[in-house]
Amino acid sequence: MAKIKLSKISTKPPKDIEKDKAKKLEAKYVEEIRDLQRLMYAERKHSLLVVLQGMDASGKDGITRKVFGKINPAGCRVHSFKKPTDEEFSHDFLWRVHKVAPSKGIIQIFNRSHYEDVLIQRVHKWITPKVVKQRFEHINNFEALLQSNNTHILKFFLYVSPEEQLVRLNERKTMPHKFWKHNPNDFKEREHWAAYMKAYEDCINNCGPDIPWHIVPSDENWYKEYFVAKVVYEKMKSLRMKYPPLKDE
Amino acid sequence: MAKIKLSKISTKPPKDIEKDKAKKLEAKYVEEIRDLQRLMYAERKHSLLVVLQGMDASGKDGITRKVFGKINPAGCRVHSFKKPTDEEFSHDFLWRVHKVAPSKGIIQIFNRSHYEDVLIQRVHKWITPKVVKQRFEHINNFEALLQSNNTHILKFFLYVSPEEQLVRLNERKTMPHKFWKHNPNDFKEREHWAAYMKAYEDCINNCGPDIPWHIVPSDENWYKEYFVAKVVYEKMKSLRMKYPPLKDE
Repeated sequence: MAKIKLSKISTKPPKDIEKDKAKKLEAKYVEEIRDLQRLMYAERKHSLLVVLQGMDASGKDGITRKVFGKINPAGCRVHSFKKPTDEEFSHDFLWRVHKVAPSKGIIQIFNRSHYEDVLIQRVHKWITPKVVKQRFEHINNFEALLQSNNTHILKFFLYVSPEEQLVRLNERKTMPHKFWKHNPNDFKEREHWAAYMKAYEDCINNCGPDIPWHIVPSDENWYKEYFVAKVVYEKMKSLRMKYPPLKDE
Repeated sequence: MAKIKLSKISTKPPKDIEKDKAKKLEAKYVEEIRDLQRLMYAERKHSLLVVLQGMDASGKDGITRKVFGKINPAGCRVHSFKKPTDEEFSHDFLWRVHKVAPSKGIIQIFNRSHYEDVLIQRVHKWITPKVVKQRFEHINNFEALLQSNNTHILKFFLYVSPEEQLVRLNERKTMPHKFWKHNPNDFKEREHWAAYMKAYEDCINNCGPDIPWHIVPSDENWYKEYFVAKVVYEKMKSLRMKYPPLKDE
């Protein structure tokens, strides 16, 4: 498979889709996702794991709210991966991830994920290149294990430009309802932009093609949301789920 | 590597070791294991995962009590794998196993383990041969993940003869302090002896050689305990652990 080069990919929406049309379609997908999740919950044969990765302010929270906001929360869980705790650090890097893998019938959203262990840790050189390579392999094996149990994995890289990110980070310092998201360290982390893009590129190229990454042009929220909703809807639809028949008494 | 045939291996102690000598050595190993565990706990670099598998009454509980009974319980945990709960069943088969993998500094004992998912499940044909094969691969990948994090895995198959097992199962019906262990189903399960041996053989031949199985002739308790204590002691000794230096103030 041809290697992906992020520098050749745009962070802007493609020209062939209009905003109005995308918004209408997205609204339809979001309703369908809600209904398909009810079916998934009833059937208990499949589960969905949605991995959201991207730089700070790339819109991971927004996706969760907009695309999955209509689902019955009984069938949808969100887990945000933060700096590992002492207990987590004293296990292998997938231990804390496996614990929160979805059970059948559930949509699990990962806001950040096991990929942080080959992103931030690599960019800051907390791990050696050899360990990065080993971890790619462990990740592929782990994801194959989940998929073998009908856990369908959708991985999204929310791809923003550094310019758009700066606009959004600054908003967090000027809009009172976003103050809580401001973290001075996010500005500092921007210095490593190129290293992050290289690390993402390697994730995308090494952790697939069985479970491919979706690279989501994310400078415009409307397009990003439409894109993710479409992929999620199409995946769920393809599962051909059915409500179970009445149980024998 | 040459395939192992269980039918060519004895369940009796070898001729070249005397009971008295073995018991003396075992006592020494058990004390050493206790001291080495203190060191492991202090250093927090390594952990040990001891997998105990074997037919009913093969002596898994006995090993736990005799070989690990002197360890500070703060540094040693035992997990007995029973019939999976509904929640466990609704995840991949390694989910419940990974959750109880040891953190650094700890000895974790598995009384039964993830291998049940390719033993009892296979013998009773609850899974297809294709799934068995996939699970061997998942197990190998999973164990490699743990080992890459300094979790050293020691797998013991406590190998008893059907005749010795019958003696022990009958004791559970005649000795009041063993009544609680009696389960009529254990007698029924004996009908599948040959299928179990085939399933164990395949585990031993497919899940190694990086993390090999130790086949423990287990008709005599004194030999079984000596054997396991020796392997555990030698593994722990080989880690060359050191008490950490005084921390800077």
